Amino acid sequence: MSLDLERNELLERILNGTDEEVSKLVEDLHPVDILDLLHDNQEEFLEVLKKLPDWLIADIVDEEKDEEKYEILKKFSEAKQKKILEEMSSDELTDLVGALDEEESKNILKNMNAEDREDVRQLLTYKPDTAGGIMAKEFLAISENQTIEETLKYLQKEAPEAETAYYIYVVDDNEILKGVVSLRDIVSSKFSTKIADITHENVISVPYDMDQEEVAQKFTKYGFLTMPVVDEDNIILGIITIDDIVDIMQEETTEDIHRLGGLDEEEKVNGSLKDSIKSRLPWLIVNLVTAILAASVVGIFEGTISQVVTLATFMPIVAGMGGNAGTQSLTIVVRGIALGELTGENAKRVFLKELLVGLTTGIVIGAIIAVLGYIWESNVIFGIVIGVAMILNMLVATMSGFIVPVILKKLKVDPALASAVFVTTVTDVLGFFFFLGLATVFLQYLI
Amino acid sequence: MSLDLERNELLERILNGTDEEVSKLVEDLHPVDILDLLHDNQEEFLEVLKKLPDWLIADIVDEEKDEEKYEILKKFSEAKQKKILEEMSSDELTDLVGALDEEESKNILKNMNAEDREDVRQLLTYKPDTAGGIMAKEFLAISENQTIEETLKYLQKEAPEAETAYYIYVVDDNEILKGVVSLRDIVSSKFSTKIADITHENVISVPYDMDQEEVAQKFTKYGFLTMPVVDEDNIILGIITIDDIVDIMQEETTEDIHRLGGLDEEEKVNGSLKDSIKSRLPWLIVNLVTAILAASVVGIFEGTISQVVTLATFMPIVAGMGGNAGTQSLTIVVRGIALGELTGENAKRVFLKELLVGLTTGIVIGAIIAVLGYIWESNVIFGIVIGVAMILNMLVATMSGFIVPVILKKLKVDPALASAVFVTTVTDVLGFFFFLGLATVFLQYLI
Repeated sequence: MSLDLERNELLERILNGTDEEVSKLVEDLHPVDILDLLHDNQEEFLEVLKKLPDWLIADIVDEEKDEEKYEILKKFSEAKQKKILEEMSSDELTDLVGALDEEESKNILKNMNAEDREDVRQLLTYKPDTAGGIMAKEFLAISENQTIEETLKYLQKEAPEAETAYYIYVVDDNEILKGVVSLRDIVSSKFSTKIADITHENVISVPYDMDQEEVAQKFTKYGFLTMPVVDEDNIILGIITIDDIVDIMQEETTEDIHRLGGLDEEEKVNGSLKDSIKSRLPWLIVNLVTAILAASVVGIFEGTISQVVTLATFMPIVAGMGGNAGTQSLTIVVRGIALGELTGENAKRVFLKELLVGLTTGIVIGAIIAVLGYIWESNVIFGIVIGVAMILNMLVATMSGFIVPVILKKLKVDPALASAVFVTTVTDVLGFFFFLGLATVFLQYLI
Repeated sequence: MSLDLERNELLERILNGTDEEVSKLVEDLHPVDILDLLHDNQEEFLEVLKKLPDWLIADIVDEEKDEEKYEILKKFSEAKQKKILEEMSSDELTDLVGALDEEESKNILKNMNAEDREDVRQLLTYKPDTAGGIMAKEFLAISENQTIEETLKYLQKEAPEAETAYYIYVVDDNEILKGVVSLRDIVSSKFSTKIADITHENVISVPYDMDQEEVAQKFTKYGFLTMPVVDEDNIILGIITIDDIVDIMQEETTEDIHRLGGLDEEEKVNGSLKDSIKSRLPWLIVNLVTAILAASVVGIFEGTISQVVTLATFMPIVAGMGGNAGTQSLTIVVRGIALGELTGENAKRVFLKELLVGLTTGIVIGAIIAVLGYIWESNVIFGIVIGVAMILNMLVATMSGFIVPVILKKLKVDPALASAVFVTTVTDVLGFFFFLGLATVFLQYLI
């Protein structure tokens, strides 16, 4: 659908075409598709790239991963680099420079025009994960006294350079944000209409220091395409567009999913063996330490186990069920925090609910396992011991599944990070302790 | 920022204002905010709602959860319902009707105008999770012979009703999709320019039966705001907009995260106790069965454990580490499938990598635990037994972390579903079997 031409034919035509033919050919292709083509044909990478117009090279650089962007740019002369940089918007330039070391970023900044350089320097002062760090400076702003016709003429000149032309911000002489008009409203209005008549005054903006995850939540909640970023005085600093937000949402959820699964947030399914091992081994070693901790608890009770060896058989059930119940609570709480659904207001209620879930499911699972234990060992006390241990462990599991991520959040650590390790450690250590401890207390009835 | 007025004051002003005052007041408020206000003031819900203009009630119905939409609508007379329905777009109406039983949907369809009713009937024929099921019929289409000025006049009439005015599709007389022009290109062009001169011919579209998750991947890849949906003959059927995609992405990732965590996909952190128990208990019972399976393996070896009781102490380490390694592989593979990064082409390479990750990390962790086992029991063979068992278990863990979701995907079952249960079962059962089996074989050297 996206590429009507066969890829090889496309490659041939780019390599053998005149500049004009290539310009015409690539006009309707998406830079992402061309970047894919380049990656699939590494030998012809540079040769193809050199045939492309500057604006397209700029788009391709932007679509490339941050750490690879400069690798593409470096292949060109300084003069050509200047032309390519000219075609990039301020947030794209900031992403590019942000990934470089001091030496390289100096080189790049030197090749920008003065205005872009100033914009990038300013954007680099914001934290990368905040509204300021992801916004672009290329927004459209007009005064409310203009007419639709004047605005359309202004757009004919300015829209091609803007990050988005679909929302135009209405500002006063001091750049203070007064409202917004949509391009849809503009084209739906008569040429003589005044901007003031179609301005929406209650414009929803975000402060420059808002965390990007919170910005993404606002976009999702309101279904916006664009949001303006303002400072303390409501002066408009830049805009954020939905396409950047979609990328951020995907990044943030991948990060959460990876952290819950005990992986580095940047590991890729199609990455290298070395990267995978670097991502996983540290977590496995942390887990080894916690597993040894759990094992030591069992070690304390070796005397009991040697007398009632069936305890060893039931150990995996107690630990496993606690781990599962803990993971359930943890998952719902971590996702609730990420979606902004778990707030200060409802935290108490959610905690109470988790406690009751632990108690209820603990009683059900505990009753089943008690009956099973009784049948297996033909001993009522054995059944009661494992049943009670199960209830206690599932209660602890849901509690820690709630408490651990909430504490991490308070400490401003990502709740998904390390939560799983802490929760499993708690359920393993306490699970074995309850089970084997109770068995030791009632040992005389078990032998 | 979003609501300058205090909420209580806003409520007062809506309740006591004249129709005109209220119209003016709510014009710049976002329907999401008004819906929040209504939910926070249940007693005044209906009274406030009745003061609002029809278009805003329509927006509020659309923002409400699917199963609650009709509850709002029902509060009004048939005549008023007709007016509200008139203000809703075809995809919104389809969401509304799709959530109702036959009786209720008949009532709603009866109150729509003929065109909307026809649109909704048609949209309901597509599967809800496909491109056809999420598209809207209100798109803008023009012929390539028009000028910019003619197009602007067409937009002044049609844009207010359209789902988006930012992309206008160029079609021939048979509604076959020929290209696309952006509103930005239109406003950046001279009034006399022909549409043909600014048409992008290589428009990327999606077939009506494409799964919504794949549609979302395309949006993310290309950074689009809108995509057209076509049939087999490339006739344009409707459009999908990014704001719907953002909601779908969030739904789909929540679903994946929940399933990986052993939860029902629809459980909410702020939901009821009953819903939580209904979501979790079935999974816990499935897990109980698999835990009993693992326990039975241990049960087989009770004789061995009774002779070397330290085996019981080391059991949690072997099982726990296998579970962790399996979860890591599972997480990266499930996320890779969801992001479209694990494909038929690279599956073999990824499998080989997972195998090598299992082997490498297994050797590292196995070596550590072998030394520890040797020190604990002062017995080299004990160290070797647990070390080798660890290597085998971690190898099996990464393998099953890859194979289980890939098989589920082939069977067209969501890979996130049940994967965790299968993988933990495999690592628990085989982990205990390797460890206790090897110990039994070498029992004479361990006593």
